[in-house]
Amino acid sequence: MTGIGATRPLPIAVDTMGGDHAPEEVIAGAVDAFREHGVGLVLVGQAPRIRQELDRHGFVGKIPIVHADEALDMGEGALASWRKPRSSIAIACHLVRQGRASALVSAGSTAGVVATSRLRLKGQQGVMRPAIAVTLPTRPRPTILLDAGATADVKPEGLVQFAALGTAYAQILLGGEDRSYRPTVGLLNIGAEPGKGDKLTKRAHELLAGGGHGIEFAGNVEGHDLLSGRVDVVVADGFTGNIALKTMEGTIRTAFTEVRDAMSGGAAARMGALLQRRRMRELRDRLDPDTYGGGVLLGLNGTVVIAHGASRARAITSACELADRLAAGRIVERIRDQVALTRTSRFGRRTHGERDTPTDDGAAAATERKDTPPVA
Amino acid sequence: MTGIGATRPLPIAVDTMGGDHAPEEVIAGAVDAFREHGVGLVLVGQAPRIRQELDRHGFVGKIPIVHADEALDMGEGALASWRKPRSSIAIACHLVRQGRASALVSAGSTAGVVATSRLRLKGQQGVMRPAIAVTLPTRPRPTILLDAGATADVKPEGLVQFAALGTAYAQILLGGEDRSYRPTVGLLNIGAEPGKGDKLTKRAHELLAGGGHGIEFAGNVEGHDLLSGRVDVVVADGFTGNIALKTMEGTIRTAFTEVRDAMSGGAAARMGALLQRRRMRELRDRLDPDTYGGGVLLGLNGTVVIAHGASRARAITSACELADRLAAGRIVERIRDQVALTRTSRFGRRTHGERDTPTDDGAAAATERKDTPPVA
Repeated sequence: MTGIGATRPLPIAVDTMGGDHAPEEVIAGAVDAFREHGVGLVLVGQAPRIRQELDRHGFVGKIPIVHADEALDMGEGALASWRKPRSSIAIACHLVRQGRASALVSAGSTAGVVATSRLRLKGQQGVMRPAIAVTLPTRPRPTILLDAGATADVKPEGLVQFAALGTAYAQILLGGEDRSYRPTVGLLNIGAEPGKGDKLTKRAHELLAGGGHGIEFAGNVEGHDLLSGRVDVVVADGFTGNIALKTMEGTIRTAFTEVRDAMSGGAAARMGALLQRRRMRELRDRLDPDTYGGGVLLGLNGTVVIAHGASRARAITSACELADRLAAGRIVERIRDQVALTRTSRFGRRTHGERDTPTDDGAAAATERKDTPPVA
Repeated sequence: MTGIGATRPLPIAVDTMGGDHAPEEVIAGAVDAFREHGVGLVLVGQAPRIRQELDRHGFVGKIPIVHADEALDMGEGALASWRKPRSSIAIACHLVRQGRASALVSAGSTAGVVATSRLRLKGQQGVMRPAIAVTLPTRPRPTILLDAGATADVKPEGLVQFAALGTAYAQILLGGEDRSYRPTVGLLNIGAEPGKGDKLTKRAHELLAGGGHGIEFAGNVEGHDLLSGRVDVVVADGFTGNIALKTMEGTIRTAFTEVRDAMSGGAAARMGALLQRRRMRELRDRLDPDTYGGGVLLGLNGTVVIAHGASRARAITSACELADRLAAGRIVERIRDQVALTRTSRFGRRTHGERDTPTDDGAAAATERKDTPPVA
């Protein structure tokens, strides 16, 4: 590590205007993260509205506010990031760039958050394309799937980089303090054998199986392995990962609707349902994407936690905790180190405009700079 | 229709040597299809072994047998189709080519069945690549997903053809006698809006939305629409379709395992589980891929029903019935007509070696020829 970063912990910037239940539920969740878990925060959005909500919780003056004039609508996509340079999410990115926040949390539309973050935070040096990592509710511990939709078209070398991003992320999320922890990585494919797949995954398998990239590659995994817990990290292009994630979410919802219908039909079944309602509710909560959901955008100069659009206070609290944990784990630096390993292997491909000395102090400063001028 | 085909119904060729429970369960299922549903059959495989099984059921001499020396192992992939020209699946294909069977059923390894069928039956005139259609257990009526894994790399024009294949298939499966029935077709994608997707789906959306192809295009659908019943047919490339299908199957299995665990924990829950065991079992059966599973390989000169490798007798009976129904519905001719519509539209692309008059008698004969020499 060449870390020269801040020694006092920076706050998490929370976009209070993104999400179906903004700002009430977003601010309620942020207050809980601050009160219950000691997460340092800065709230971004319409200042009078934020003050009004903080007043309800009795926290006016205890959590800093940064005003933003505009908000991205939930229906707005990538173009809005150019049209609205003063949106709450753009201002939150700005705080991260300026070194006034360590990461940001938003429940805004995924397309809008991803586009704005890419525009304002820029890609992390050496990383070709960003990826969204989501945490699947496997047991005994979660499986990380990436990319869940940030980059639809990707090259084989990009998939190898996603494996590096996922490795760095899993080390913090699953490995805790154990720096020697090496998460296993599977390639999402349509068959277990090495020769299976489309052109993209066949080539990516060759690169990953070739070694020399610091990734603990466990081979191909299939769709039914996503919830089996077979590997710690599952890598896919953003198109495939998004299809898999939404298929899983839809299937879980359908299965529970059907189970509920089956349990509510007939007197005996109704009686049975009553007797086990609580356990079923716990199970549904664990598997419900609104509870476990959301993702983390990796590969930019700053970490962006994207909560589900339907997030209630509890989900926002979890998102703030996750952002805090990733910032404390120095995720940006870990990704830089992990990606550097993939580039020293024989298939390495340099990104455009990259300098020849990617691990010098300049590179470190790029991830931790404190004096960058505003981007807007 | 220019049909000049056979007037008496041809039998279905059943590969008795493919599947985890071959030949016992395969033959038991075939006998049931013959006895209970009047499906005409010819059994292909080790003749003495078939006779022995038929004897157990009291059907020796009632169902014709065609001997085959070899069988593809469940682990064997595409190469085996060249190495084993006398395999039971190759012989079954041969019967279809010769006009001695109208379709075939196999529970062999999907890769082996697909490769052998492509080699022996050849692509249907005008169809660029074949696709596997599977039937998803939506309600009130099923949704058809294709391609579930026959063609991993496909062009946008190929996706439009898959939409035509799926339309022809759905007309027979869902439309019954109603020839005016137009199934709705959705494109599996990562967003509902037209501009969403990777390069492949963006272009395919343009082609499908452009019209002039006889397809009732309903726009993009997402992973969570697969079980919602929003459209009759969902189109994807074979890589994406396979990932979605296996993700769905794995998620259903995980959800039911978890539900069972939740129901068996604690005295009250156990009591509840007892009271509703039957309804839960019915539900699980409906959603279990071993029950509804299997697929149909479309786009070749003959229809191939691929039953799940784990098929028991009941699944084989269903597969024989399905093959019989598709043959009676003249699926090959319907696909020819439907694909011809896509090629008259402005983006049309001809396949290699195609004649200028694709709907003349020669084309009809290609799908129904009776005098083709053996392929082996």
